[in-house]
Amino acid sequence: MSSKGNVTAVIGQSGGPTAVINQSLVGVIQEVRKTRHIHNLLGARHGVRGIVNEDFINLNDVPDELLERIAVTPAAALRSTRDKPDHVYCERIFRSFAKNNVRYFFYIGGNDSADTARIVSELAKAENHDLQVFHIPKTIDNDLRVHDHTPGYGSAARFVATAMIGDNFDNRSLPGIKIDVLMGRNAGYLTAATALARQHEEDGPHLIYIPEQPIDVEKLIGDVDRIYSKRGRCLIAVSEGIVAPDGRTWFELLAEGHERDAHGNLQLSGSGELGDHLANLIEKSLSPAGGKKLRVRADTFGYIQRSFPGCVSEVDAKEARMVGQLAVRFSIDRGNRGSVAMKRVGTGDYRVEYFLTPLETVAKETRKMDPSFYQEGNDVTEAFLDYARPLIGRLAQTGSFDELKLNGHGR
Amino acid sequence: MSSKGNVTAVIGQSGGPTAVINQSLVGVIQEVRKTRHIHNLLGARHGVRGIVNEDFINLNDVPDELLERIAVTPAAALRSTRDKPDHVYCERIFRSFAKNNVRYFFYIGGNDSADTARIVSELAKAENHDLQVFHIPKTIDNDLRVHDHTPGYGSAARFVATAMIGDNFDNRSLPGIKIDVLMGRNAGYLTAATALARQHEEDGPHLIYIPEQPIDVEKLIGDVDRIYSKRGRCLIAVSEGIVAPDGRTWFELLAEGHERDAHGNLQLSGSGELGDHLANLIEKSLSPAGGKKLRVRADTFGYIQRSFPGCVSEVDAKEARMVGQLAVRFSIDRGNRGSVAMKRVGTGDYRVEYFLTPLETVAKETRKMDPSFYQEGNDVTEAFLDYARPLIGRLAQTGSFDELKLNGHGR
Repeated sequence: MSSKGNVTAVIGQSGGPTAVINQSLVGVIQEVRKTRHIHNLLGARHGVRGIVNEDFINLNDVPDELLERIAVTPAAALRSTRDKPDHVYCERIFRSFAKNNVRYFFYIGGNDSADTARIVSELAKAENHDLQVFHIPKTIDNDLRVHDHTPGYGSAARFVATAMIGDNFDNRSLPGIKIDVLMGRNAGYLTAATALARQHEEDGPHLIYIPEQPIDVEKLIGDVDRIYSKRGRCLIAVSEGIVAPDGRTWFELLAEGHERDAHGNLQLSGSGELGDHLANLIEKSLSPAGGKKLRVRADTFGYIQRSFPGCVSEVDAKEARMVGQLAVRFSIDRGNRGSVAMKRVGTGDYRVEYFLTPLETVAKETRKMDPSFYQEGNDVTEAFLDYARPLIGRLAQTGSFDELKLNGHGR
Repeated sequence: MSSKGNVTAVIGQSGGPTAVINQSLVGVIQEVRKTRHIHNLLGARHGVRGIVNEDFINLNDVPDELLERIAVTPAAALRSTRDKPDHVYCERIFRSFAKNNVRYFFYIGGNDSADTARIVSELAKAENHDLQVFHIPKTIDNDLRVHDHTPGYGSAARFVATAMIGDNFDNRSLPGIKIDVLMGRNAGYLTAATALARQHEEDGPHLIYIPEQPIDVEKLIGDVDRIYSKRGRCLIAVSEGIVAPDGRTWFELLAEGHERDAHGNLQLSGSGELGDHLANLIEKSLSPAGGKKLRVRADTFGYIQRSFPGCVSEVDAKEARMVGQLAVRFSIDRGNRGSVAMKRVGTGDYRVEYFLTPLETVAKETRKMDPSFYQEGNDVTEAFLDYARPLIGRLAQTGSFDELKLNGHGR
């Protein structure tokens, strides 16, 4: 184990994995090697839990060849945690840092991780322990305040848009009503990204339901009926977190008594219940009385959305590496701490600038989709498509014999 | 609409879509243009249904640029059908052919489509109508007799192996018990392909259940308990068609009263029920009495398996194109009819030869996995991995910090 001195940094990963979370980790590891202010880099296994248990991996000598393989491996290479530290837990984190002479803390995660970073940073200040804390953004939900978008979102969005392209043509081949349930408890960004699958007038998803827009049973059934009557098929993208007009989630209405995770969140992922419920509801409501039952199917995209390694957005991978690298560069300045964020600049092609935003501006509360990104009831806007398109990269260009009619060919 | 003469061929697509079914269609279209014996190519919309309804698209003049986009578009570009023609239906098909002077019939599909082709071919013989019938194989289930493997399988297998790589690292990050339910009513080929995801000793899937090996609740719970106790996590791949020792499917046991499709098959896909049932069963059986509930999740991979356009096997795409081209070349010889099949040749690198097999050798009955491909209870064999590996192509190479320990690094 090599060490150039006694200034130690700790890095950890937290929360639900993404396909590019290790790009940020590798960005930190490689950048630390280029600097002089950090002598020793420790990886905490399972995030904050590894810190309080002093369960560290020495990251000073990992061969570059292995680092590059880890960078393209989905999910947290240091392993993750669902622990959400309270004040007492954060004091244990700080004591572990003080004991191990830790002066820099890089924490890759979402809003909860930013809040942990904030509390630990304040504890250190109160104790006059010199500790610079950096939050490195990661979430497929894309729901961090201040951040234009978050690493992990682009690849998950690319996956769901690609899956929706396939499902659209599947549903064209064998027409019926198809429901796809997507991740997103509070924000509809990932579900909204399925709209990028549309390449021809007739392509689905034909209806998009996000948590930002309450929907009741009657309205939903009416929407499906209208599309199905017109097109003979209907492809529907639904956030797992959709909400009824009274403010309760559809899942809450369904899931009285279901388990909650350590954050008090209802367990939505890892179950096909919402999709199956919607399929039954639509089939019962719209099948003709005494006639043949409608063909209604539901898929719940599940964990693949956040971990699929075969469909990564290049922009997302690059930005995920960059926020890791920049966290280390920002740490050179003794006064710095915060969350490494992106903002778009210029009016032409997609371009971002990176900056530090105070931890408290990102911690705790998440953000919803911008109201300019969705429209009345069941769709997204052009503004959203323009926002999301550069984040996911170019998709496969599909073709259909319908194009012949448009060009005056065919029978 | 151009036509060099009056000899007409019809092509149709049938059954569940695949990611490469249009490669075969485009193979036929492009090859017909090179030949002199077919003057006019009609595409039947929705397979046999388009034939009896004389709902045809003229395919003589489709621009190559569009054809190449259609080739990489998943699911049937001519649209598909679940109709399984009986003898009367086949007579209607034949009358449509006689009326439209159809002399060649190319039908892309699985075992049911081969049977339709067989019946129509026999009707034509009985009526002295000169009709050459070719079945072009397509099924992600890989369950056609005689065929070494079938176009569509390689890409679906590549998708599920890639998804399993992601899910393995996700499950490592946040350990627990994870069940993935895969397509495959009768044959376990697709579920078995998840074994290709393993790159390190510790990688899942740790348990693989296929319809070829009956499994009861006690054995399954015992398997999961053993793996979970050893590794602290367990990743399980389950075919939707798994069978209890009494010969009934697990889904049958669950799904009394569920809908059946036109073929008399139970509706398994498009529902998360089997996965959710297994998750509840494992959680209830293995959670410590009075203690914290185990983290058990289930995903049902669903239709994405057969239609995802972002993860196509190059070998599969090439072979799918080739079986279409060869069907047309085989049709030059007036005596020929049959199913275009592949067999492996040589003992070195993967190489196949194509040949015609009689329709009755492929029609109706499907095949199960070869017994040499699976072993006692819950896994596949090296023989299966050797069989499947060349069909899916190279997968992403992942990395893990565990490799440091193996090399004497780390703490």
